[in-house]
Amino acid sequence: MFGPVSPKYKPLDPTTVIDYVRGRSELDEIFRPGEAIESVEVGDGNLNLVFKVWAQADPTHTVIVKQALPYVRLVGESWPLPPDRARIEAQALEIEYRLVPQHTPRVYFYDAEMYLTAMQNLHQHIIMRKGLMQGIEYPHFADHIGVFLARTLGATSDLVLDYRAKKMEVARFINPELCKITEDLIFTEPYRPTERNIFHAELAANVQAVYDDEPLRAEAAQLKEKFMTQAQALVHGDLHTGSIMVNAEETYVIDPEFAFYGPMGFDTGAVVGNLLLSYASHEVRSKDPTKRESFRRYLTETIVRLWAVFEREFQTTVWDHADPVNFPQAYRQDYMLRLLQDTAGFGAAKMLRRIIGLAGVADIRTIEDVTDKSIAASLALNIGVALMKRRREIQTIGDIVAIATEQKPNYPYRKVD
Amino acid sequence: MFGPVSPKYKPLDPTTVIDYVRGRSELDEIFRPGEAIESVEVGDGNLNLVFKVWAQADPTHTVIVKQALPYVRLVGESWPLPPDRARIEAQALEIEYRLVPQHTPRVYFYDAEMYLTAMQNLHQHIIMRKGLMQGIEYPHFADHIGVFLARTLGATSDLVLDYRAKKMEVARFINPELCKITEDLIFTEPYRPTERNIFHAELAANVQAVYDDEPLRAEAAQLKEKFMTQAQALVHGDLHTGSIMVNAEETYVIDPEFAFYGPMGFDTGAVVGNLLLSYASHEVRSKDPTKRESFRRYLTETIVRLWAVFEREFQTTVWDHADPVNFPQAYRQDYMLRLLQDTAGFGAAKMLRRIIGLAGVADIRTIEDVTDKSIAASLALNIGVALMKRRREIQTIGDIVAIATEQKPNYPYRKVD
Repeated sequence: MFGPVSPKYKPLDPTTVIDYVRGRSELDEIFRPGEAIESVEVGDGNLNLVFKVWAQADPTHTVIVKQALPYVRLVGESWPLPPDRARIEAQALEIEYRLVPQHTPRVYFYDAEMYLTAMQNLHQHIIMRKGLMQGIEYPHFADHIGVFLARTLGATSDLVLDYRAKKMEVARFINPELCKITEDLIFTEPYRPTERNIFHAELAANVQAVYDDEPLRAEAAQLKEKFMTQAQALVHGDLHTGSIMVNAEETYVIDPEFAFYGPMGFDTGAVVGNLLLSYASHEVRSKDPTKRESFRRYLTETIVRLWAVFEREFQTTVWDHADPVNFPQAYRQDYMLRLLQDTAGFGAAKMLRRIIGLAGVADIRTIEDVTDKSIAASLALNIGVALMKRRREIQTIGDIVAIATEQKPNYPYRKVD
Repeated sequence: MFGPVSPKYKPLDPTTVIDYVRGRSELDEIFRPGEAIESVEVGDGNLNLVFKVWAQADPTHTVIVKQALPYVRLVGESWPLPPDRARIEAQALEIEYRLVPQHTPRVYFYDAEMYLTAMQNLHQHIIMRKGLMQGIEYPHFADHIGVFLARTLGATSDLVLDYRAKKMEVARFINPELCKITEDLIFTEPYRPTERNIFHAELAANVQAVYDDEPLRAEAAQLKEKFMTQAQALVHGDLHTGSIMVNAEETYVIDPEFAFYGPMGFDTGAVVGNLLLSYASHEVRSKDPTKRESFRRYLTETIVRLWAVFEREFQTTVWDHADPVNFPQAYRQDYMLRLLQDTAGFGAAKMLRRIIGLAGVADIRTIEDVTDKSIAASLALNIGVALMKRRREIQTIGDIVAIATEQKPNYPYRKVD
C-alpha cells in the first residue's frame, strides 16, 4: 500500500496523454479510432497533473485524465508524496458514485501503474468558488450537497455498514501522507509562528492574537485529536468550494484524494466554512449594498437549508433503518447535535487556515485593494475564532449563522499600498 | 489478514504438545534434550487451548503454550472465530514487553501456522480475580497497573507515535471478530432482552429496569460508538482481573487477543470496573464487618492510587515530551478529564455486562447464598448505572469512588431457594 512507485509510472504531458488515451479501449465510446484529439493541462491544484482531452471535431467528446505526481506540485520534488493517493481517490469516487451518482463524476478506469484516473469531464460546470466570487447563486446547491453529505457519510459509517466491512474499509483508506498535510496545515501551523504561514502584513496583529490565544490553541488541539482518532465515516477530506463543480442545475463533488475514515464534521464543516469564507469576502466584494446583502443572505440561507436537507436525508437513509432499542431517540438527537458542533469547529479550522496558513483562498486573496482585503480577512478570522470557541453552545444551524453574522471585521491597523 | 485457516493448523492436545515443544529450538534453554516433559491443558477462558508444559525433573523449567481455536470454545463450532487473533495477541505482547517488560510475560516465539504462542509460565502468580475473591490485598498492584496503563496507552497513541507509524499500527491491529464480541456482549445485549443474557431470577426486576431505561440505553450507545470509532491507542481490550496475574511482589497482564486501536478509557475502565465488581461482591463475601470494610477500603484506595500513578506516569512519559504550543495546558487537563470520564463510562459498561450478559463474573456468580448473590449483583448493577449516567459530572477519581460507595444494594424482591 505504501511501497515504492510503480516502475511503469511515467508522468504524462499534453502530447503523450493523447497517445495514452488512444491506447485505452475503455474510452472507445468517447473517441472514434483515428480521430484528431486535443489536450491541455489544466491542473490548478497542488498535487496532480490534470489533462482535458477532447475530440477536435466535437469537444463534447471529452475526458479528464488525472495523474498523481510523486511530490507536492506547489513545492516541488523536495516534498515527496506517494502517488498511492490516486488509488484512494479512484476508490472513493467509486463509492460516492454508487451512493450519489448524480453528484459524482463517472470514472472510466483507474490505471494502478500510472496512478491515473480517466473520468467524466464536467465541461458544462465551473468550480463553485469561482461562481461564488462572481456573486452567482446556485439555487439547488443546498439540496444537492445536503444529500451528498448525508448519503456518503451515513452509508460508510458503523450506523449502516456491517462491523467487518467497516473495519476493512478503515484499513483500505488509511491515507497517512495526505492526512499529515491536513494535520500540519490545518491544525498545527496556523496556531504558531512558522515560516510556511503566509498572510499579508496588515493582518499581523490579528494573526499574533491567534498565536497568543491559548484557549483557542486548546480547541484546535481537540479538533486535531478528533481528526486523527475518530474513524466515523469515509470522509472526502477536502470538501471546499474548489472541490465542487456546479451550474444552475447540477452539483458534482470532485477530488477525494484526501479521503480516509475520519469525523463526519470535517466534511460538513468544510462546506459551511467555505460558504462563510465567501460571506466574509462579500463584505467588500459587492460595492452595491443591496446586492451584497442579497448575496450574503443567499449564503446564510444556503447554510441553513443544506443542514436541514442533511438532517432529513440522514433520517431517512440512516436512522429510519437503525434499531430503536439500542439507538434510542435521545442518542440520535445527541449524535446530530455533536455533528452540528463538529461542523462549527471544523468549519472554523478550515477558515482560520485559509487566512493564516500556507494555502490561501481565492475568495479573499484575489481582492486587490489592501484595505478591503484586510477587512474581509479579519472578518473571516473573527468568524473562525468565534465558531471554534463557542461551538459547544450551538444547538441549531441557526446558531452557527447567528454567531457568524454577529462578527465584525477589524479595520487594518495600518494602510500600505 | 482474514484469510482461510492455515492448512498446517492442527489443534494440540496434552500429548502432542510435548512433541511439539521438543521440536522447537527456541525452547532449548528451558528443556534439556530428551528429558521427561509433562503437560496439562488449563484453559479456563472461552476461546483457546492453554497448555502448561514443564520438565518432570524441575517444574520451574516450564512454558505456556497457548493456541487459538477457530471457534468460541464456550459455545462450540457453531460460533466460528478466526485464529488470526493469535497473531494479534503475540504482536500486542511484543509491544507491551518493549514498553513494560516487568508486567508482560515474555514471548519465546509465535507460530503463525499453528496460531500458537509459547510464552513465560507465570507459575508463581495467580489470577488476580481469585486472590480478590479470597480477600487478598496486593499492595503494589495500583502502582504496577498505573504504570502499565500509562505506558502502553500513551506510547501507542498519536501523542507519542509518528503519524505514519500510528496509522500503520491501526491497520495491523484491525480485529473485527474480537471487537464484534465486545460490541455485542458489552454494549448491545445487556440493554435489551436477548436469549443469550444470563442472570439469576432474583435480579429480574433490576434487569427489566435496565431494559426500560432509555436514557441509560442512550449512554450505552454513545460508549459503543466511542468503542467503534475512537482509534486513540492500542488497547488491551479485555483488561479485567482475570487477565491479570499477581503475587505480593509482581503484576503481569496477560491475554491481549482483543487488542485493537480503541479508546484508552476502555482499558482503564476495565480495571476500575472489575475492582468495583469485587467491591460489590464483598458486600456479602466478608461476614466480619471489620474485615469487610478494611478490604473494601483497600479496593477503593487502590482505584484512587492507580489513577494517581497513571496520571503521574502519563505526565512524565507523554506530556513532558509534547509540544507546549500546540498542546497547551488547558488541552492536557481536558484530555485527562475526558479519560477519567471515559473510565467511569466504560467501567460501568463492564460491570453491567457481567451482571446481565452472557459472561458472568466469578466474584459474584460463585456466591452460594441466593439472597447474598442478589444483594451483591444488585449493588454492582446500581454502581454501574450510576457511573454510566453521571460520568459527565466526574472531575476527580475521588468522584468515581464517591458515586460507587454511595450506592446501595436492592434486597431481592422475592426469596427462592
